[in-house]
Amino acid sequence: MIVEMRTGATPEEIDAVVQKAKSLGLDVQLNVGTNKTVVAVLGSSTGQLATDILAVLPGVENVTRIMKPYKLASREFKGEDSLVSVDGIQIGGRRVVVMAGPCAVENEEQIMKAARIVKEAGGCILRGGAFKPRTSPFSFQGLEKAGLELLARASDKWGLPVITELVDPHDVGMVSKYADLLQIGSRNMQNFALLSAVGRSRYPVVLKRGFSCTVTEWLTAADYILAGGNNRVILCERGIRTFEDSTRFSLDISSIPVIKRYSHLPVIVDPSHAAGHYSLVPAIAKAAVAAGADGLLIEVHPNPKEALVDGLQSLTPSDFARLMEELKAIANSVGRYI
Amino acid sequence: MIVEMRTGATPEEIDAVVQKAKSLGLDVQLNVGTNKTVVAVLGSSTGQLATDILAVLPGVENVTRIMKPYKLASREFKGEDSLVSVDGIQIGGRRVVVMAGPCAVENEEQIMKAARIVKEAGGCILRGGAFKPRTSPFSFQGLEKAGLELLARASDKWGLPVITELVDPHDVGMVSKYADLLQIGSRNMQNFALLSAVGRSRYPVVLKRGFSCTVTEWLTAADYILAGGNNRVILCERGIRTFEDSTRFSLDISSIPVIKRYSHLPVIVDPSHAAGHYSLVPAIAKAAVAAGADGLLIEVHPNPKEALVDGLQSLTPSDFARLMEELKAIANSVGRYI
Amino acid sequence: MIVEMRTGATPEEIDAVVQKAKSLGLDVQLNVGTNKTVVAVLGSSTGQLATDILAVLPGVENVTRIMKPYKLASREFKGEDSLVSVDGIQIGGRRVVVMAGPCAVENEEQIMKAARIVKEAGGCILRGGAFKPRTSPFSFQGLEKAGLELLARASDKWGLPVITELVDPHDVGMVSKYADLLQIGSRNMQNFALLSAVGRSRYPVVLKRGFSCTVTEWLTAADYILAGGNNRVILCERGIRTFEDSTRFSLDISSIPVIKRYSHLPVIVDPSHAAGHYSLVPAIAKAAVAAGADGLLIEVHPNPKEALVDGLQSLTPSDFARLMEELKAIANSVGRYI
Amino acid sequence: MIVEMRTGATPEEIDAVVQKAKSLGLDVQLNVGTNKTVVAVLGSSTGQLATDILAVLPGVENVTRIMKPYKLASREFKGEDSLVSVDGIQIGGRRVVVMAGPCAVENEEQIMKAARIVKEAGGCILRGGAFKPRTSPFSFQGLEKAGLELLARASDKWGLPVITELVDPHDVGMVSKYADLLQIGSRNMQNFALLSAVGRSRYPVVLKRGFSCTVTEWLTAADYILAGGNNRVILCERGIRTFEDSTRFSLDISSIPVIKRYSHLPVIVDPSHAAGHYSLVPAIAKAAVAAGADGLLIEVHPNPKEALVDGLQSLTPSDFARLMEELKAIANSVGRYI
Repeated sequence: MIVEMRTGATPEEIDAVVQKAKSLGLDVQLNVGTNKTVVAVLGSSTGQLATDILAVLPGVENVTRIMKPYKLASREFKGEDSLVSVDGIQIGGRRVVVMAGPCAVENEEQIMKAARIVKEAGGCILRGGAFKPRTSPFSFQGLEKAGLELLARASDKWGLPVITELVDPHDVGMVSKYADLLQIGSRNMQNFALLSAVGRSRYPVVLKRGFSCTVTEWLTAADYILAGGNNRVILCERGIRTFEDSTRFSLDISSIPVIKRYSHLPVIVDPSHAAGHYSLVPAIAKAAVAAGADGLLIEVHPNPKEALVDGLQSLTPSDFARLMEELKAIANSVGRYI
Repeated sequence: MIVEMRTGATPEEIDAVVQKAKSLGLDVQLNVGTNKTVVAVLGSSTGQLATDILAVLPGVENVTRIMKPYKLASREFKGEDSLVSVDGIQIGGRRVVVMAGPCAVENEEQIMKAARIVKEAGGCILRGGAFKPRTSPFSFQGLEKAGLELLARASDKWGLPVITELVDPHDVGMVSKYADLLQIGSRNMQNFALLSAVGRSRYPVVLKRGFSCTVTEWLTAADYILAGGNNRVILCERGIRTFEDSTRFSLDISSIPVIKRYSHLPVIVDPSHAAGHYSLVPAIAKAAVAAGADGLLIEVHPNPKEALVDGLQSLTPSDFARLMEELKAIANSVGRYI
Repeated sequence: MIVEMRTGATPEEIDAVVQKAKSLGLDVQLNVGTNKTVVAVLGSSTGQLATDILAVLPGVENVTRIMKPYKLASREFKGEDSLVSVDGIQIGGRRVVVMAGPCAVENEEQIMKAARIVKEAGGCILRGGAFKPRTSPFSFQGLEKAGLELLARASDKWGLPVITELVDPHDVGMVSKYADLLQIGSRNMQNFALLSAVGRSRYPVVLKRGFSCTVTEWLTAADYILAGGNNRVILCERGIRTFEDSTRFSLDISSIPVIKRYSHLPVIVDPSHAAGHYSLVPAIAKAAVAAGADGLLIEVHPNPKEALVDGLQSLTPSDFARLMEELKAIANSVGRYI
Repeated sequence: MIVEMRTGATPEEIDAVVQKAKSLGLDVQLNVGTNKTVVAVLGSSTGQLATDILAVLPGVENVTRIMKPYKLASREFKGEDSLVSVDGIQIGGRRVVVMAGPCAVENEEQIMKAARIVKEAGGCILRGGAFKPRTSPFSFQGLEKAGLELLARASDKWGLPVITELVDPHDVGMVSKYADLLQIGSRNMQNFALLSAVGRSRYPVVLKRGFSCTVTEWLTAADYILAGGNNRVILCERGIRTFEDSTRFSLDISSIPVIKRYSHLPVIVDPSHAAGHYSLVPAIAKAAVAAGADGLLIEVHPNPKEALVDGLQSLTPSDFARLMEELKAIANSVGRYI
């Protein structure tokens, strides 16, 4: 950490900063400039230290963190790419893994049809929500346990592993009986009780980015899961909130190379929630693969016009099949396959 | 809802929209313009209906919601201001209620000293966190139950009701044994499991604004609590995330008159988390009272230099006492008192 | 426009809205609901009308615009894609046009080397700034007219048309003596004096998106140029300002399909200013081509370590050559070529 | 500047950073940690140096600026508050200066009535736009020179100095014949040609904050004017663009204490453009005065219902008179007067 003293800071104030840093077991180096004194505080744990501890001292103008606050998710901690295996499917390798299905499980016929569409078009994991965190209490909240059972049945029939969202820390055991891959939604990215619960398990987890969290906060949230001993973490970019209103969220395409630079974890992309409209999904999905995403999480519905949730952003079966063909071409052009 | 058809939409496409709306029990009025056909869909429940249901139909360009999505929190639902009473203290009336204390309960001496400072300067509710949702798993996470016990002791000794944060839906009963006012933090504003749990209780709740949620989403989150039958809801503005980096968050001062216009619920302001630096807290606190806030939630610590959490944004005892005097003058100038 | 009256609005208030709309030559349709009266105001010019004119009337709750505020840039105004031709190179067709070069023209050797690099790797337009709008007055401001002369010399020698930025409305004539394509920078997207000046000319223009302007405002700014009679307008997405700080700006990849949906104008992408770091440029550039961009504007410098401006986001000659090969593969995979 | 080397950076890479810094005339101090080497680059001009110059070197992970990029606007450059005098009225002193009037000058009757309203309610400067930068080319663009003449006439008759917006760098001389105070609008905050032109003059200037610029960028833009030798600069906060959509912009109330901390320049607030709706203006105006603003810029119109521009955010004469009384009480409560 770099502590910038105020112009005119007294020697006593500077000394207090030095003593405080030493009391925390850190090394200190003093840079006495003509205008400013700057104190460099060094040590391997400074990334995890709150800057406040020094910023609050008298005579301090500003404290800047140099080490990143996340640790276990960083590429400095682990140099090679992590691979997460789900039922024999590797995420983070040469294959671009397509997970697809409806936003919410609605009934047996719907989820069975959806699974067939996904399978036939070449998708390899089935998505479907049973617990739906909805903005309004008056909206459809999901089939809950009955939905999980339907998902499991579709999974068996079509030989597709299943990903579904978890919302309550007390449900890890129950949900993972039915699902192969647990999803933590955007609104729960900083639900630390939920992250810790999942970290204590050994199930693979897709951690969606909070729609207004930075990449740094996202990787620090991943640290909660990794710190529990569960290293089967997959990140999922799904758009951030900006002033732009022609899409539901702004997909942060740059987050893919940023993650690849700073972290060893695989990263996938959900183009559907970012777009908010089916007509925009293909372009975003193709961009994600070109940018290096390890997978996609796409909403497809047997009949979007009748969908109970998010029909507008769901692809029809034929649009999905066409997109899969286009994605295969893009994947090949960047040395991967679907 | 207003459904704008694409230029060149066919009569069949327009008719499908009309039929869909009617099937949902809604009234429809057709506006056939020279360039565009616009379908107005009317009915008292359109605010709670997803726009997707119509937007997904062929030939539809765009669907605009006219009714607000929240209902129980709206001033249209309840015209007069709601008052929430906590241990005889009314929030939402002429008195501007100051809640103050440290970010985290650290030990008995600290919380006892803090309670004394709050009491002596004229504050009327004691704040202090026992469960701390922290960005990094390596940061101090709070004293948990032991912290609640210390809070309750300070409350008894100094005759101050207590507000504290709740993070797990299963803890409502336990936490409310010790606390008079439950706080739902910014990162949990859309933790619907938590909102529902609190809604099933009858304890007063402070619902902090999600740092990147709109006022509309905030009031819709309040609907989750109100829908459970708990109408003791207080809103708390605490800053939103923007591109500005000289403060931790940007306090949205306009949200106060916006809430007063659209909702009957009381609204308080937390200037400390928005500012992120003690030197900025007084100006923001004074602005909040001038803008019509019903209360303040301020961080004060017996010795900010030794604080375990957020010391940089905590006021010292003397700064807090001085601010209280300034706030009294402002409150008087807008016809209220502290 | 849709005018939502307040609950309890009087018949006189409703009538005042109707009369006002009629006085503006518009058609009106009344929707009297049980809770709300809604007035639909119809006519082909409502997109260009300020909503304030009705919103300010007593009893009005809210006014929503249905027609987009831009007109000439819209796909409704012109159904087929516009092609802009620069010295025989068509922008907006099957070819993905790569424009590249240094951020600023520094001296003859630098711009000559840069032109050669661009030409040899397959780029077809040379970029280089002579007037540099810099955040600080103490930064290098560009070579101005001398820079334009060097650019023109490089253009002649290597047979590459030239794009350069224009900052003063009085310089249109002078700059276009040297340049083939005028660039309006992000900070000037709403410099209406500059837009109008360019609109009165017949030179092709690249209009960069304001870094915090919506797509709608961007297309409305394009209307300023089109309204002057100059229809040679190319849009350029270059990243928007968000809370994310790991990149300089967040490239809004979704803006490409959004523009294609709502406008007939070609759209190119500048991955360099969004990324802010050379290591992130290739992934973003590839994503842009996959998403359907009609061209790219890339910073490349013979020796980024010695660049006077924005060296960190400039590609080296070898990185640029490698990227061009990768881009050709992506372009082919989406049915285009470079 | 603090240069963080990558883990595993070679001694040659570290040395290259040291040599580069020394070649720029800067001091260097090396901090060789166990994991990381950090190079502190010291000198009084580092604030004005681009970080790219070092960040682009091999082996560099990140470069952090410690000194602020602005210089002349900083409190470190000038410790005491600056006062700007306009026709005998001091801005930045104990008096809170209220500037008010219509958004646009429409005709003689309107501006004369407006001046009277402002004068009688206790305002001391008349505002009114003659050049209107409008989002759409089809909107009313202002009366231009004829508007300036009407403004000057109202100024003479009512003894009120006049503030008006300038949009073209070539118009400084012409506009300042009629106006006492030049306004640079939000969209032109980084129109460096305009800033430089005004900097070469000696007229007092109100520099509005760009709606998506940081405080740091705003003060750096002020440096453009100050660097020309014109030190009569007043800052004006008018709201920033965020995701919140219940107001037109989000007024950044914290910017007032932030400016007071880091700069010596006076700062005023425009509550009207931020609010976008007259009903929200009073609360924001009161908050601004409580937070320490040196003045206000308020839109008032003799008849908002007939206003050509921004009628929705204009106060009526009676609302303005009432607000002035309320503001006087607030000003007194913070030791100032109106």
